[in-house]
Amino acid sequence: MTRRLAVGQRVLRANDDLAAENSARLETAGVFSLNLMASPGAGKTSIIEHTVRRLAGRFRLAVIDGDLATSLDADRAAAAGARAVQINTAGQCHLDASMVQRGLDALDLSGVDLLIVENVGNLVCPVEFALGTHRNVLVASVPEGDDKPFKYPASYRGMDVVVLNKIDLLPYVSFDRARFRHGVEVLNPDVHILELSCTTGEGLPGWLDWLCEQIEVQRQPIEGVSGRA
Amino acid sequence: MTRRLAVGQRVLRANDDLAAENSARLETAGVFSLNLMASPGAGKTSIIEHTVRRLAGRFRLAVIDGDLATSLDADRAAAAGARAVQINTAGQCHLDASMVQRGLDALDLSGVDLLIVENVGNLVCPVEFALGTHRNVLVASVPEGDDKPFKYPASYRGMDVVVLNKIDLLPYVSFDRARFRHGVEVLNPDVHILELSCTTGEGLPGWLDWLCEQIEVQRQPIEGVSGRA
Repeated sequence: MTRRLAVGQRVLRANDDLAAENSARLETAGVFSLNLMASPGAGKTSIIEHTVRRLAGRFRLAVIDGDLATSLDADRAAAAGARAVQINTAGQCHLDASMVQRGLDALDLSGVDLLIVENVGNLVCPVEFALGTHRNVLVASVPEGDDKPFKYPASYRGMDVVVLNKIDLLPYVSFDRARFRHGVEVLNPDVHILELSCTTGEGLPGWLDWLCEQIEVQRQPIEGVSGRA
Repeated sequence: MTRRLAVGQRVLRANDDLAAENSARLETAGVFSLNLMASPGAGKTSIIEHTVRRLAGRFRLAVIDGDLATSLDADRAAAAGARAVQINTAGQCHLDASMVQRGLDALDLSGVDLLIVENVGNLVCPVEFALGTHRNVLVASVPEGDDKPFKYPASYRGMDVVVLNKIDLLPYVSFDRARFRHGVEVLNPDVHILELSCTTGEGLPGWLDWLCEQIEVQRQPIEGVSGRA
């Protein structure tokens, strides 16, 4: 077991080194980037589709999609108007920095303002592996239940933004918004919580405003001020 | 990387040996057992609550609950009337056979007819680790989307039963039942697919009938006939 842990620590250290390289590349190219994490089916790809459709006229968007199998998600992002690269993880339960590095190699970063990395749908493993992106965003969804921040604290901790998706389903399921927000805020006192619905469009402007603000900061760096969290 | 794989293979082999021990204990005690797997929030705990409430007068029920943190799920199973043991996995993204062994040690199996092992909410990792239970059951839910069998084939493969939960939400979300069933059946030609809603109770009788039948077979073993999959 000790040996297994030692191997695990070496893997994580090597990943951190590669993540730092990715981070430097994104910084140099002036690309604002997100690591989008969630349970399977919380709505990451739908949020990406809406984001790409609504921002494509204003910014140049790229998506790196991590999945165990298929290119369904990258196809959806590309159909919406983004440059999209699909990474199949060969059974791995999360993206890691080397996979994102391959994704960056496949993109011309000089033509990108916003890069969204869509991680594998998994509320446990992805958060352990830094990718080198600027912000960690967790997408939660109403039908998953209000207890998830309590049950998956490691994944809810260290988030810059928590998006609560599928609020159009609030009338049909039991979900206590105050309990959910309390669970998120206990773990992240400075977190930004955004509620939205990709089905009705409610709340999407708030998400897009936050995103545009971050992209602008990253595009026009002022000496001594960093866009990095 | 080779070394890491070799360590992984040793871990899996050791797990298989322990799973065989668990299996023998359950068989000897005449306990029918399930490994219940799902994404976070698909409704495993709600299904357990309904199962315990409706079968408690007829069978003696026990639950081993795997979670990263809290005893919320075991508390719900116990409140419904089951003997419940909570296993916190200390960050592990799945249960393994040694954790289930600890759970079995904490239960008096001679007083149990049905044991439900509720795995960590995760659609990637749990399926790799045999626990020694009789049947693999995957709980899917309508709001997760109909594409999940295609995107998580390793977790959908090798299932005896796939429960599609939250069918009361079908009027409010985009979900193609035929596409979902096709995805499941391609991976498991002999699978039993059950549709239900814990909110309305629709479909629960079919699930309970299947379960009762399995428990009866396991309780009254006939020479040459095994209740094992």
